[in-house]
Order: sequence, then C-alpha cells, then structure tokens
Amino acid sequence: MNSAMILYILGHVLRIEGVLMLLPALMGLVYNESQGWVFLGMAVALFLFGFAFSFKKPKNTTIYLKEGCVITALSWILMSFLGSLPFVITKEIPSLIDAFFETVSGFTTTGASIMPDVEILCHASQFWRCFTHWIGGMGVLVFLLAIIPMSGGSNINLMRAESPGPSVGKLVPKMRQTAALLYLIYFFLTALETMFLVFGCMPVFDSVCTAFGTAGTGGFGVYRDSMASQTAYIQWVVTIFMIMFGVNFNFYFFLLYRYVKKAVKMSEVRVYLAVILTSIAIISINIYHQIQSVGGSIRHASFQVASIITTTGFASTDFDLWPETSKIILVILMFIGACAGSTGGGIKVSRFIILFKSIGKELKSYVHPKSVSKITMDGSPVEHEVVRSVNVFFITFMVIFTISVLIVSLDSKGLVSSFTAVAATINNIGPGLEVVGPTQNYASFSVGSKLVMIFDMLAGRLEVFPMLMLFNPKLYLTKPLIARKVK
Amino acid sequence: MNSAMILYILGHVLRIEGVLMLLPALMGLVYNESQGWVFLGMAVALFLFGFAFSFKKPKNTTIYLKEGCVITALSWILMSFLGSLPFVITKEIPSLIDAFFETVSGFTTTGASIMPDVEILCHASQFWRCFTHWIGGMGVLVFLLAIIPMSGGSNINLMRAESPGPSVGKLVPKMRQTAALLYLIYFFLTALETMFLVFGCMPVFDSVCTAFGTAGTGGFGVYRDSMASQTAYIQWVVTIFMIMFGVNFNFYFFLLYRYVKKAVKMSEVRVYLAVILTSIAIISINIYHQIQSVGGSIRHASFQVASIITTTGFASTDFDLWPETSKIILVILMFIGACAGSTGGGIKVSRFIILFKSIGKELKSYVHPKSVSKITMDGSPVEHEVVRSVNVFFITFMVIFTISVLIVSLDSKGLVSSFTAVAATINNIGPGLEVVGPTQNYASFSVGSKLVMIFDMLAGRLEVFPMLMLFNPKLYLTKPLIARKVK
Repeated sequence: MNSAMILYILGHVLRIEGVLMLLPALMGLVYNESQGWVFLGMAVALFLFGFAFSFKKPKNTTIYLKEGCVITALSWILMSFLGSLPFVITKEIPSLIDAFFETVSGFTTTGASIMPDVEILCHASQFWRCFTHWIGGMGVLVFLLAIIPMSGGSNINLMRAESPGPSVGKLVPKMRQTAALLYLIYFFLTALETMFLVFGCMPVFDSVCTAFGTAGTGGFGVYRDSMASQTAYIQWVVTIFMIMFGVNFNFYFFLLYRYVKKAVKMSEVRVYLAVILTSIAIISINIYHQIQSVGGSIRHASFQVASIITTTGFASTDFDLWPETSKIILVILMFIGACAGSTGGGIKVSRFIILFKSIGKELKSYVHPKSVSKITMDGSPVEHEVVRSVNVFFITFMVIFTISVLIVSLDSKGLVSSFTAVAATINNIGPGLEVVGPTQNYASFSVGSKLVMIFDMLAGRLEVFPMLMLFNPKLYLTKPLIARKVK
Repeated sequence: MNSAMILYILGHVLRIEGVLMLLPALMGLVYNESQGWVFLGMAVALFLFGFAFSFKKPKNTTIYLKEGCVITALSWILMSFLGSLPFVITKEIPSLIDAFFETVSGFTTTGASIMPDVEILCHASQFWRCFTHWIGGMGVLVFLLAIIPMSGGSNINLMRAESPGPSVGKLVPKMRQTAALLYLIYFFLTALETMFLVFGCMPVFDSVCTAFGTAGTGGFGVYRDSMASQTAYIQWVVTIFMIMFGVNFNFYFFLLYRYVKKAVKMSEVRVYLAVILTSIAIISINIYHQIQSVGGSIRHASFQVASIITTTGFASTDFDLWPETSKIILVILMFIGACAGSTGGGIKVSRFIILFKSIGKELKSYVHPKSVSKITMDGSPVEHEVVRSVNVFFITFMVIFTISVLIVSLDSKGLVSSFTAVAATINNIGPGLEVVGPTQNYASFSVGSKLVMIFDMLAGRLEVFPMLMLFNPKLYLTKPLIARKVK
C-alpha cells in the first residue's frame, strides 16, 4: 500500500476544498454576513493543513486499484466531515452528526436533508450547501487527474474508483485532457441553465444555487417547498436540464467532436429516454384524476420522473400523495438511476441493459445449450469480466440495501419509510415516501440510522466497492499500513 | 422440439393425477359425502384422457433441456387447471379463476388462499387441497423418472427443470434409484410427523392433512386460524418438521448411507440452521414486550421463522402485528428460502452462499487484481458456469418480482400489501403482510393480479426459467412446433 501517495493526494484534496470554500466566504462578504468569516477561516485552515501533507511529492507515484479505492473513500469522508464544520460553528446546524449527514448528502449529490426549513440559512451557508452538489457531481479526484502527474496507468485506477458506471472508456487518448473536457462541458451546461432560470425571473443567487443542485443531480435548493411554488416555465427548464445532466457525458463528447451519428446511436441514452417517456406517460394517466388538467399532469409527471431517475430529488408537488402505481414507478426509477458517465446515481441504465442482456443470453442457452455468444453493446462485445462485475455489483448493492433497511427499521418509522429512506439515500435521490416524503426530512432518525445512511450515500456515489474496501481486513492484515511505502 | 414426447409425458402426468384423485374420492366415501363422486368422476376422466395421449410410446425418446422446460411448465399448468375443476363443480369455490389460483397455490406449495374460511370445505376437498401440497412438494416429474425409461441423459434434463436449486447432483449412480429414494425419505418423514401429531391428540384426518402441508412446505391447513389455537406441543412438532423439510435432502441421503461426517459438514445446512437460530434470537427479543413470556416469545418466533424460511406459511400468531424489525426479518427470510434440494421455495440458501462468495471474490480482486481463484463449496470448486447462472437467476428473479409488484399495485391495496403479496407468492410462502397477512386472504385481488401471482407461484416453484421459456419466441419461431417430431 503506497501510503505516502495516499497522504499526498488527500493533502491535495484538502487544498482544493480550502480554495473552493473561498466562494461561500465571498458570498458572506457580498451579503455582509458574519458567517462569511467562518468560511474564510475554514478555507485558510484547510489550505494550510492540506499544504502540509502535500508539500513533498513521494518518489513512487504508482498507485494500484486498491490505493485508488482507499484514496477515494477516505477523501470523500474527510471532505464531507471538514465541509460540515462551518454549519456547526455558525450554529445553523448545531448537531455534528446532522451537519455531517447534510454535507455527505451534499457531496454525494443525494439531497437528503435534516433541515425542516432551509430558508433560515444565511446566503454563505445556502451557497456552500448547494455548491457541495456541484463539486460532488463531477468529483474532486477527476479534477486532480488534470493537475497531478502520475506514473503511467495510475490515473485510470483513481478514475475507475470515482467514476460512475461499469467501465471507464478513454474518450480521448490523454486522461488529463478527458478530465479537463468533462469539466468544461459541466461548467457550460451549468451556466446555460443559470441563464435560462434568470431569464424566467428567478433571482441570480437562487438561479446559481438551483443550477448547482441540478448539475450535480443533487436536489438541495434554496426554497423550503423545493420547486412547488415556481412557475411552470421554471419547472420545465429544471426538468429538461435534469434530464440533460443524467445523460452519459460521452454523448456530449461525441457531439463536440461532431460524431453525431455515434451520439444518436448510443443505446444507453436511447433506453434512458425511452424509460423516461414511458414512465411519464403512465404516471400522467395515473395522476390525471388528482391534478384535473392534462398540461399539469404531464408537467408534474415529467418533473418527478426526471427528478427521480436522474436521482436529483427536486419536487414540484408532494408525490407521496400520488396513487400507488405512480409511487412504485418512482421507486423503481430510484434503483434504475441515470446513465453511466453522468452526474446521476442509482444502479445506472447501462448496467440494466447488460443485466437484461444476460437474462436473454441465459434463455437462449436453454434452446441452444452448446452455443457460445457474447453480449454486445453499441456494436462491440462486452467482456465477460465486465458482465460478471455488473452482476456482482447488483447483488452487492441489494445486500447492502437489505442490511441497511433492517438496521434502519429499528427506528420503527414504518416499512415504507424505512424502505424508501434507504432507497433514496443509497441511490443518491434525497426524498422518499411517507416519513421521508418530499415535504418531510431525515432529522427524526436515530444516530445509528443516520450513520447507516451516511455509509449508504457514500457507497451509492462511489459505486459500492471503494467503501466496502475500507472494511476489507485483507487490506490491513498482511502488513502494517504505514510500513509499506514502496509497493 | 420433440412434441410427440412432450404429449406422451403430459399424458402420463394426467394418468398419475387421475390415480391420485382416487384418494379424495375415497375420503368422500369414508365420510359419506356426495362430493366424493365428483372426485371419482374426475379421476376416471383424467385417467382415460391421459391414457389416450400416452398410449403409444414415441420412437424417439430423447428430450433436451428446452423440452424438459416446456414439459415441466405445461404439466404444472395443466395439472393445476384440471385439479381445480372439482372445487368448481362442487361449487365450494364457484369462481374458476379462484379455484385455479387455489390449486396452483397448492401444487406450487405456496399456500396462498382465496378462502376466508377453509372449514366450510367437505372432507374430500379438504384432503385434496392439502394433498396437492404433498404432490407438489416433491414434484410429479421426478416420480415419472422412476417409471418411464428414456434415452441416456434425457432424464437429467427433466430433473434439472423441476428440481429446486442451482445444480442437480447425482446422489446415486442411477437416476431412477435417486428418485425412488427421495420419495421414500419423503414418505417416511410425513408418516413420522403424522404419528407425532396424533400422539398430541390431533384427529387423524387433521394430522394427515397438516403433515401434507408441512412436508410440501405448503401451508394449507384444515383450521381457519392456521395453527394459532393448537397446543404448544403441536406447534413445536410442526416447527421442528418444517425445519426438517427445509433441509437439503442430500443430508438424509448421507445419513442413510452412514456418511455422517459428510452430512454434518454440509455448509448449506449449517448456514441454514445458523440463519434460523439468529433470526429466532433477534425476533424473540423484539417481540418479548408483546408476548410477555420468554417461552411464548421463543415458541412464536421459532414457529414463524421456521414457517417463513422454509416457505411453508403456517402461522401460530398474527405476525402482521409484530414490530417492524421482526416483520422485515420475516420478509428477508421469504427471499432467502430453504435449502436447495428440499421441498421449500425462495431463492435458496446455497444460492446465497454462492452470491456472498462472489462478492468476497470481487473484493479480493481489488487487492490482488491478477489473482485467479475459484469459489469453493464443501471443499470442491464451484464451476464458473454455475456461479454465472446463479447470478443471472437472482437478477431474473428480482426483475420478475419488480414487474409483478408494479402490475399488482394497480389494485391499490397499499405498498406493503402489494410488495408482500408478490413476495409471498413468488417465494411460495402463502401469507404476507397487511391485506394478505396471516388472518387475511387473496380473494379481493383483481383477476389480472391473480393471473400475475399464478405466474409468480409457478415461476417460483419451477425456478423461473421453465416458465419464462414459454414466452421465449425463439422456441416457436424457427420451425412450427408440431412439424419437428424428430430432433
């Protein structure tokens, strides 16, 4: 285990977080809030602290997949913990566990809140809370790839551990260029949404925060009723941008490089849109008798479907009051999630495509037992190794989900609440049903349940295995962690 | 597709069902009930009908796995449909769909009932209803293996399609001898339980019916409150026998052949018992404040845990009133199910062992990416093919489960009811929670939901793929079904 390199990269992560915290400090200055000084102080402390760890670059910069996992898991935990301190110091969220929950929920782009009313926060805190979504959406480590040179092949191990989806494709030959391009697209789309929102007469500050929540597919907003009291125009803008941020970013790469045909043929994007349209159609019909208008039914159905499948978690209405079938569709969408290579969470559309294709292959093998065939996707074969790892991912996911529900059930919030609270956190959605419905919050759960859901949010965002690795005794037992600096 | 052979075997199945129906006819005679004549008439009709189809043995007796699947699926559907007619003719269950549901529930050893009060049935019908559990528990086709000679290797394709569990081991060199031995153990254990029940002052007729329900891990009984009003002695006898029928029958084979060490070391049986004991311990503590006695808590916890993990479905108390954590444990046990190679349903303990081992293997591969290792069970390696097929089984199971819940939700019975109704049918349990709780029944569901659950019960009992094969267009599209008599 290359622990020198682990510390070095963690140091860099803290430095970046310090720099990023200057923005809420600036907001404090702009709005003349005393809380701004707290953010400034934290920013300086984080930067100095991080600088101390990343002062000297280790000789051996090689990291393997296991180091990639450990770095990813630790940096997300550390970043969230330190990022929660301003809330505690300003006493806006006095309980440390609640502030930690809220910040993990922010960075993992979950959007599950413990706050009954977000409008009591000062502008600096409001900004930081929504900004964590934007940071977490793309991931800090991908950003590091663009600035830290590492030995050949090492970056892919870091990227694999942080990026959502079954496989990381090298879109352009250079990994650093890929990372830079990703951020460019991300930045551009966020700016575009902000413009559209401002155009709809939303205040600039609110527009920026809402765009952060959409871009990271997070769901934290600045209004206590999420998006319910916004105009139809604003709701449609947010709907469309949520769907856009749930698309595999390869799609935009292809468009950027004018491979329009290749972009249009991406089966993951097609299936993703097909699932969205089908769900909207069914729910629109199912809720029509409640809404009593065709336009309203379609708008609310579209908003909620987009919000849940992209795992954003905004709400334009209290969908906990919807008929049962609509609610079950939403719960199913929670697990499906967005496209791989997007900022969204969940199990991911491409994994489901592979899962369904392996079922088809199994059925085929009953008719032609001797035939050997490979699953293909977008014309090229999917390696057995990837299929196997998708299968194992799904099973591991369900096991963690089940154990979490069991522990959370000790709080006796009711079966539906426990089930959807875990579903909404592990899939990085935010709101669930009943006790954790869109008009409710997570404050009433016990500390134990909150810790379980913090683990689930991180496991969901980091695709399960990096978090599980922390509990893998094999990692520690063979030799002491610090003693093995050179692999 | 060897359709001549399919018809031939289906004919045999009908003949057997005709013979078996003589038993309820006999009961009608003993208790001097007019309904007995209905069963006698049906028995004769079935026998003659079956005789016509199986009169001439086809020249080509070879069947492949696909024929094995089709035969299995069709014979279970046919057997259930024809087996439900006496209930309709005697007007005890006037609705055909309800009678079909009840009989599928019987043969698949589910025990989900549409009857608000079973005590209104005559003795002949009571007997037939419980007897379907006993028939379905072991399976009719396994019995046929013992009496129809087929070309080498053909029987394994039939047995694979009907037997529960990831792989069919040849316990003794001759398949026919295996089948005969299975029935012998089954018969002996059923007789033993009957004796113990009679010894506890239960009437002989009730004892036999209860033993049928236990042996097949079905759950149909002769009392309207299931086992709630029985003595503690009776409840303990049933508990212990439920657990015994959920054990992999290889265990008894090993004991019979005096391989005691091998029997004791079977990891599936050990894990199965460990899960049972852990669940009993947690639930006993969790329900103690409701029951207010240590003995009572342990007894009810043991009874329900045994009943649910073996997928029997008897109830000694209304567990729908238990605390949330206990209910979630029961729902988890529904999916785990009994051992492979037992009469129980669910996903099966051995599959879970393999699933957990593949998670462990995946974690190991993160630490040592180059290592190649095979999963082992009871000392011998599990083939990649088996691991893959277990993974695909689990995923297919979850997909069918989810789609079923979605359709059943159209009845608006509430999320927990829809979820557990499907869980209790696809895992062949019987009772679920809320609307389908142990004191309730399935009568109020719509015809559409009942058809979905009928499919689920059959899919659960026949391990998913034979039922899915019926919907595989590949089976029919290439050449017409009838034209290809010789493969």
